[in-house]
Amino acid sequence: MFALTVRDHVMIAHSFTGAAFGPAQRLHGATYVVDATFRRDDLDPDGVVVDIGRASAQLSEVLAELAYRNLDDEPAFSGVNTSTEFLARHVADRLAERITAGQLGEHARQLSAVVVTLHESHVAWASYERSL
Amino acid sequence: MFALTVRDHVMIAHSFTGAAFGPAQRLHGATYVVDATFRRDDLDPDGVVVDIGRASAQLSEVLAELAYRNLDDEPAFSGVNTSTEFLARHVADRLAERITAGQLGEHARQLSAVVVTLHESHVAWASYERSL
Amino acid sequence: MFALTVRDHVMIAHSFTGAAFGPAQRLHGATYVVDATFRRDDLDPDGVVVDIGRASAQLSEVLAELAYRNLDDEPAFSGVNTSTEFLARHVADRLAERITAGQLGEHARQLSAVVVTLHESHVAWASYERSL
Amino acid sequence: MFALTVRDHVMIAHSFTGAAFGPAQRLHGATYVVDATFRRDDLDPDGVVVDIGRASAQLSEVLAELAYRNLDDEPAFSGVNTSTEFLARHVADRLAERITAGQLGEHARQLSAVVVTLHESHVAWASYERSL
Amino acid sequence: MFALTVRDHVMIAHSFTGAAFGPAQRLHGATYVVDATFRRDDLDPDGVVVDIGRASAQLSEVLAELAYRNLDDEPAFSGVNTSTEFLARHVADRLAERITAGQLGEHARQLSAVVVTLHESHVAWASYERSL
Amino acid sequence: MFALTVRDHVMIAHSFTGAAFGPAQRLHGATYVVDATFRRDDLDPDGVVVDIGRASAQLSEVLAELAYRNLDDEPAFSGVNTSTEFLARHVADRLAERITAGQLGEHARQLSAVVVTLHESHVAWASYERSL
Repeated sequence: MFALTVRDHVMIAHSFTGAAFGPAQRLHGATYVVDATFRRDDLDPDGVVVDIGRASAQLSEVLAELAYRNLDDEPAFSGVNTSTEFLARHVADRLAERITAGQLGEHARQLSAVVVTLHESHVAWASYERSL
Repeated sequence: MFALTVRDHVMIAHSFTGAAFGPAQRLHGATYVVDATFRRDDLDPDGVVVDIGRASAQLSEVLAELAYRNLDDEPAFSGVNTSTEFLARHVADRLAERITAGQLGEHARQLSAVVVTLHESHVAWASYERSL
Repeated sequence: MFALTVRDHVMIAHSFTGAAFGPAQRLHGATYVVDATFRRDDLDPDGVVVDIGRASAQLSEVLAELAYRNLDDEPAFSGVNTSTEFLARHVADRLAERITAGQLGEHARQLSAVVVTLHESHVAWASYERSL
Repeated sequence: MFALTVRDHVMIAHSFTGAAFGPAQRLHGATYVVDATFRRDDLDPDGVVVDIGRASAQLSEVLAELAYRNLDDEPAFSGVNTSTEFLARHVADRLAERITAGQLGEHARQLSAVVVTLHESHVAWASYERSL
Repeated sequence: MFALTVRDHVMIAHSFTGAAFGPAQRLHGATYVVDATFRRDDLDPDGVVVDIGRASAQLSEVLAELAYRNLDDEPAFSGVNTSTEFLARHVADRLAERITAGQLGEHARQLSAVVVTLHESHVAWASYERSL
Repeated sequence: MFALTVRDHVMIAHSFTGAAFGPAQRLHGATYVVDATFRRDDLDPDGVVVDIGRASAQLSEVLAELAYRNLDDEPAFSGVNTSTEFLARHVADRLAERITAGQLGEHARQLSAVVVTLHESHVAWASYERSL
């Protein structure tokens, strides 16, 4: 089993609903350092998991849709807590759509899974893994 | 599959028994930077894997039982090598007990697995993964 | 010359004024991983730069005044860009006041300088150094 | 499930074949920070996954075969792209051979899997996992 | 004193001349993770040390002149050992030229110093600091 | 001004004297990740600050004198608190002696300063800087 990971980051504002969140119920924000991992059983004809340039570019585009935004104001996130876990799945699902659509190249259609990890600080991170 | 990880650390003294350990048979010590990962298939009603504040607090309490101690003098560790691997399992088992006891919240009872990684230096670390 | 550094973090929301900031003019946020460094020429009677527990506690208290807040709504920051650089100075100045007030202990009055570094991502950080 | 990881590094030159590689078709090089992870279900009689000294020494020897070389000139890599993914498998396979040959100790024959991760920069890494 | 640092990376091939370099006399390569630090006494009218977007873009352009190249073939480096230290000075000097030429903005002309650090692995790095 | 840093680590046991140390008055231990920085104004005839192999080897030898020991039992440290700060100076002084004795090479006699940083965890580190 092979895996390739690329890292980028995104800065957003948001707030949480629910007493469990304590002071994080107030409007605040986060830098997420984002790792996107792509998995497959065998290498493609170029000898890689996926073209690293394309992988980085697609991750950057997915994050640009979130960057420098107050997620509380985004219709797509209405009524949900945009927790680190939730956003990890969001980014993973957007990458999966792009893989299916061929935006990471034809060979990337053989990828078997994607994992996205969002680091919210040096002491906490969350991830979501899904098959393709 | 979702995962959430929180990081803390603990400083202990100990020694090892067995020629394979070479100079580590002498009384020495370690800082362990400890990552505790919690896994589940779906998010809880708050949209998270587990309350991050509770997770951090419980990890801190588990580590406090070890902190600033000579593990050679602890009855619980009599006759065993408190290797990084062994301690990773010890911390994971203590967290599992607390999850079962409801100390990470009611929703945490749906967690499926816990993984604990102890970094003993910048060039070596060990982990233990168990289901719940 | 001796130095001791402790690390903590804080999550905030804010926006910037000025065309140079591009999309960061929108309301967004950041996690700042914060390093506070204390300097002195000689060690204190306990053989340390400053009590590490006190240093960590004071840094945590200074950051708590910012944590989970929208800095655009804070009167103290009215009309200024709360850039990473600006906030590094803010934290350093608050720590300096606490050192002068004796909150880091009597021996800490011999500290010669404080440096605060705020990491806004894995690829950018800013710092401010001041004498005491 | 237990795991132990040791870290080392290696510096090499190489070039890639294929338009997808863009400027990396030119002769260039890389530092790979290499993590070798060893897995097993139960600890060995010494209470460890594998002797950490032996694991580090064997990883170092495997990397020494690549170190300070132009991989384009190595017969073993003739006609292939020595991508980060490819080299992760190469290192994992060499470690697996050494495990089977007893070079990590008799107890290491009970290891169940090895994973090798090569970090090519702070923003990209690749890994290969295989059973034993 | 304020400072701002941005991080990028570059991958190159080269060899060294001199018995002291041992196996590094052979053609090999390196990934350099590059930190460029900019210093000034006071913040500019926007409240920053330098525009972070411009700083990142200029560092990227300077590194692009080196990227994916065999430095042994570059006329600019003929007859010199392109050590990590040497390359840190090279990058710092190129950034200084761009600052003087106004490519980091008019306000950047008030920068007092630049420091460039090249990390050649997780266990070795070199830096060069110069005034402006 | 040029600088070169090499990293290594050491694991020790010790205890502290003084109420300020709280639970750290008990016998415990630490892993110190140790960075040794060497400074000079100009590069040596090989184009480096100091031979990196020699620098690493000398740091390793200095740390070997401490490794896997209970510092409370070392006559050299009788009656002192072997704090992170104190040990940073100890390592720096031992390196300075070796530089003066020529053990880092003849050209290393032109080094102007050495800085040693000991990381005791992911959230605390101390350093000592001295001229040569």
